[in-house]
Amino acid sequence: MSKREDKGEISRRGLLGGGAKVATLAGLAGVAGAGGAGLVTSTIAGAAQAAPAGKGPRVHVAPGELDDYYVFGSSGQAGEVRVLGLPSMRELVRIPVFNRCSATGWGLTNESRKILTENMLPETKEFLKKRGQVVPHTGDAHHPHMSFTNATYDGRYVFIQDKGNTRVARIRCDVMKVDKVVEVPNASDIHGMRPQRYPRTGYLFCNGEHEIPIPNDGSVLDDPKKYKAIFTALDGDTMKVAWQVFVDGNLDNLDADYQGKYAFSTCYNSEKGTNTAEMSANEQDWVVVFNIKRIEDAVKAGKAKMLNGVPVLEGYHGSPYTAYIPVPNSPHGCNAAPDGIHLVANGKLSPTVTVIDVRKLDALFEGKAEPRSAVVAEPQPGLGPLHTAFDGRGNAYTTLFLDSQMVKWNIDKAKRAFAGEKVDPVLERIDVHYQPGHNHTSMGETREADGKWLISLNKFSKDRFLNVGPLKPENDQLIYIGDDKMTLVHDGPSFAEPHDVIIVRSDIIKPRHVWDRNDPMWEDARKWAAKDGVKLESGENVIRDGNKVRVYMYSAAPAYSLEKFTVKQGDEVTLFITNIDDVEDLTHGFCLSNHDISMEIPPQATVSVTFTADRPGVHWFYCTWFCHAMHMEMRGRMLVEPRK
Amino acid sequence: MSKREDKGEISRRGLLGGGAKVATLAGLAGVAGAGGAGLVTSTIAGAAQAAPAGKGPRVHVAPGELDDYYVFGSSGQAGEVRVLGLPSMRELVRIPVFNRCSATGWGLTNESRKILTENMLPETKEFLKKRGQVVPHTGDAHHPHMSFTNATYDGRYVFIQDKGNTRVARIRCDVMKVDKVVEVPNASDIHGMRPQRYPRTGYLFCNGEHEIPIPNDGSVLDDPKKYKAIFTALDGDTMKVAWQVFVDGNLDNLDADYQGKYAFSTCYNSEKGTNTAEMSANEQDWVVVFNIKRIEDAVKAGKAKMLNGVPVLEGYHGSPYTAYIPVPNSPHGCNAAPDGIHLVANGKLSPTVTVIDVRKLDALFEGKAEPRSAVVAEPQPGLGPLHTAFDGRGNAYTTLFLDSQMVKWNIDKAKRAFAGEKVDPVLERIDVHYQPGHNHTSMGETREADGKWLISLNKFSKDRFLNVGPLKPENDQLIYIGDDKMTLVHDGPSFAEPHDVIIVRSDIIKPRHVWDRNDPMWEDARKWAAKDGVKLESGENVIRDGNKVRVYMYSAAPAYSLEKFTVKQGDEVTLFITNIDDVEDLTHGFCLSNHDISMEIPPQATVSVTFTADRPGVHWFYCTWFCHAMHMEMRGRMLVEPRK
Repeated sequence: MSKREDKGEISRRGLLGGGAKVATLAGLAGVAGAGGAGLVTSTIAGAAQAAPAGKGPRVHVAPGELDDYYVFGSSGQAGEVRVLGLPSMRELVRIPVFNRCSATGWGLTNESRKILTENMLPETKEFLKKRGQVVPHTGDAHHPHMSFTNATYDGRYVFIQDKGNTRVARIRCDVMKVDKVVEVPNASDIHGMRPQRYPRTGYLFCNGEHEIPIPNDGSVLDDPKKYKAIFTALDGDTMKVAWQVFVDGNLDNLDADYQGKYAFSTCYNSEKGTNTAEMSANEQDWVVVFNIKRIEDAVKAGKAKMLNGVPVLEGYHGSPYTAYIPVPNSPHGCNAAPDGIHLVANGKLSPTVTVIDVRKLDALFEGKAEPRSAVVAEPQPGLGPLHTAFDGRGNAYTTLFLDSQMVKWNIDKAKRAFAGEKVDPVLERIDVHYQPGHNHTSMGETREADGKWLISLNKFSKDRFLNVGPLKPENDQLIYIGDDKMTLVHDGPSFAEPHDVIIVRSDIIKPRHVWDRNDPMWEDARKWAAKDGVKLESGENVIRDGNKVRVYMYSAAPAYSLEKFTVKQGDEVTLFITNIDDVEDLTHGFCLSNHDISMEIPPQATVSVTFTADRPGVHWFYCTWFCHAMHMEMRGRMLVEPRK
Repeated sequence: MSKREDKGEISRRGLLGGGAKVATLAGLAGVAGAGGAGLVTSTIAGAAQAAPAGKGPRVHVAPGELDDYYVFGSSGQAGEVRVLGLPSMRELVRIPVFNRCSATGWGLTNESRKILTENMLPETKEFLKKRGQVVPHTGDAHHPHMSFTNATYDGRYVFIQDKGNTRVARIRCDVMKVDKVVEVPNASDIHGMRPQRYPRTGYLFCNGEHEIPIPNDGSVLDDPKKYKAIFTALDGDTMKVAWQVFVDGNLDNLDADYQGKYAFSTCYNSEKGTNTAEMSANEQDWVVVFNIKRIEDAVKAGKAKMLNGVPVLEGYHGSPYTAYIPVPNSPHGCNAAPDGIHLVANGKLSPTVTVIDVRKLDALFEGKAEPRSAVVAEPQPGLGPLHTAFDGRGNAYTTLFLDSQMVKWNIDKAKRAFAGEKVDPVLERIDVHYQPGHNHTSMGETREADGKWLISLNKFSKDRFLNVGPLKPENDQLIYIGDDKMTLVHDGPSFAEPHDVIIVRSDIIKPRHVWDRNDPMWEDARKWAAKDGVKLESGENVIRDGNKVRVYMYSAAPAYSLEKFTVKQGDEVTLFITNIDDVEDLTHGFCLSNHDISMEIPPQATVSVTFTADRPGVHWFYCTWFCHAMHMEMRGRMLVEPRK
């Protein structure tokens, strides 16, 4: 066991590459300094505090008015996806994904458990079973992205990864619920994730961030040569793994191009270390470029090795499938500009951002050019550049974690400066509060980037809100960028941890108001009902099948079709409840008291849950979603007869 | 099994008492009508849409400005408590209570599991164990209320009940975390809950809403005489059950007086039925008044029967402990006015609210007056009155579920009208959107009611927000009441289901910024560390004790003190992690990947988790709360060696 004291000095010194060393060290000291005062490296002096004046944008959304954009935000370790309205920044709904949800029954209902387990690895099922669990209760959701068609959002799906349990999930935008969860084999801790932009999604690209020994059987701890990181392409339509590629270095963030030819990942740990000091020793790491056509051809040609059912290629240095473009130490964010040409890798431990021209990549793969020839600019916006967003007018907005700033810079000016011209690419800086991670602009990752709004996801809020104890909210700030000047219009406190967001024009998404009775979600319920000769929409039946009991009921405000039913202690009971109300906003709920069973039953949906009736006595069930003046009277009783 | 069709006609007809029948039926039809168009019984025409003009209140909270009030809101079936700022109505933090929280590890950590289980009934522990669970993952949290001293908020605790699993929890306002959860014996489904107001809290009163057979052993289903409902008083300091009282009828909402003499519950089901039709047959139900002194004296005198360790009295009709005041059918909300004199019972199925003068209650208990003599007014604000709030200036604000309105009426005028004077107590009506349940005014349940703000918690939002699919948000509307005219200033979408709120002046609550190292929360961790000869703040030890392994580490941005540790497959591993950072807002997290372990480690806190290491291989652990520029590098490895 190595001591923290032993590596402390190394980790402070070893973090930084070349010229950036002094500047970044100063910044780090500001963050890590003892006593707390050092945490804020910039003040709010200079930040615009008021809403834009005059003919500015609509900032205030009056009661009854609708927002202009949907914001899909991840929640980090809270495991859910949140949908907000913009510019009001009000949370419109939460979508449970990797978390256990008390309200909706996500993780409890048979329908959600099927989704959460049907693409789970067998060893994970086994591991959870030993712990008495069917599904995990946690997740670490970082990067929500929408499916694309022709390089703009198509309103079909939002994808989200789980770094904590190596999973990827898909949300249907018609009903705003998850329909697929996939555990990715041969990988550990999915971090970067982006959908293919062109011609459509298509692939969903995923980075396994942490290198692990392959196979990970417990025989290896300290032999870094046996550690591997893997890049995964899922099919976004079927959510099956299409292929994987082993790479050199730890995969961080990624993006796809606007042509359908390449995907890109920032990569650190070119050193092949297993701790921070080792991983940060080199002055340069790289951006890995994946040649999709060559990979597809190799897989078709049978050149891939099958590993846990997936074709896997070796994409190390020198392979035909990848190109490694050196960039300063430990690059983090990876962002393709809506001009279709430029890719920005953000320096993190270097004050630089590296701009790559995707038109120069063919030559790399043809062996006609050196990797660094694709770099066309490398401006220095400041300390701790993490992520960059775009306005579609040729400008980029980079978050500076250490400087607590958002920096607006011009891509063309940066290229001219890189070519030797005396020009400052930085146009403007605005303080944010405090320590921003991801940022995002309205439609900014599509060819329809409209350059109106910018969200800065700040990791510390400190003194910006009423004190709520040791666990402070984060601060999602909204900045108007439609004018020449950036204007801060809103501080948005948020619970752990809105890691990343996308901002989608409201006309793109057209959700249903009620569910379709024939939705695939309750296909199993329909099969059981058919087997039992019951109609889900009008059943009020108790079917006994040995010690298995299937109870069918429907709900219509303000009553369930069954006011009581009887089972025996030890019975395995499955309840099927169908909400026959066909009315917008008329969700029912079902809580079986003292049984830890609670779930949402949306209009026209069927929801089922299976449990063992092991508590003799009368137990009330009741509606949890306020549905009617007599909502509180919507209830009934289950009698569990004691086992003789 | 009775058919819904069979009772449909009865349930529509049987709901309503006497004179209210026609009016309320019309309203119900509006809500329950087929096709959905009927759901909205009022339009937004006439509602004030703009912020107050001129010298009105501060409505807009600019970036960096602080709110004036804390709002503590429940979340119904989501099981948590939410803290908002007012007037911005921004969510500042979520407090996990009855739910399983992916971010904080609530329900997973040893500290939270101790709190969740130490006052759990043995049969519930047994029931959960058979299901492979240690704690429930769901709850139904309705009524958050703060502890009182001298009839105003004292900033110590917020209490919240769980209807779904018959529990009550306490939140410490210094750290905004739960420190006590109690399962209430002899009861089913805790609904109404209020703290004693005077001289202090003191008691926490709780209503077991649903009658159940006592004992509930499965031998009784359809013998209503054997069903009982129970009123519970907990000691708010120790959170132990002090005493219980059996009553006639189902207990709904409750409140306490301003003198420390009485508590009150609205009660329905005077019929002693077991389904809606039976329960709603009578034209009158009642408010039950509990005489606290008499109950305490009887318990002291040994007149109570011990039932599951709790002294229980019989408080049926004619008992010395209770008075039953008849009010119209199925009263719901129960609200004591800040004048210290008036109690309002809200009619729900009757268009009336009943006003009781607490000064007239002594005579009832002395046998000198008839129960209805305590009723001093019974105005008719409209259809579906559910809850009433107060402005401290003699006015009351009642939510009308069916009319979708908030009605302002004057208590004194209502009394004069009741006495025969020709005066209309209703001062103003404002439409809300739509179907309001609870409402609350700023400081409105205290002697410091300031009459500035009113929140209406509306159950349907329908068209008020961007469509997010079948599950619509609810709508928490903010209304300014400091002028003569009510003004709607904010629509607040919210996830299931902000059932009730309180609004607390910001100077009353003074949370800590970091935890106290000696907090009782990690008393067990300190004991283990002492036993193992380890210091929590500087330990980096792996203690093997048979197949039990205790791993101690501390965290300081950006590193854990252990970069790796090794255990054997099958070991029962307990991790103790202490965050030694002493900096405001410097929360760390801990995620053990592919192990479904994720938790919050606040500054100066110790957090522990126990699990069986059953997955051979290298597993990364990492920090989940963004803490530093090198946050992503804050990680290490656990090696699980395979069992030979």
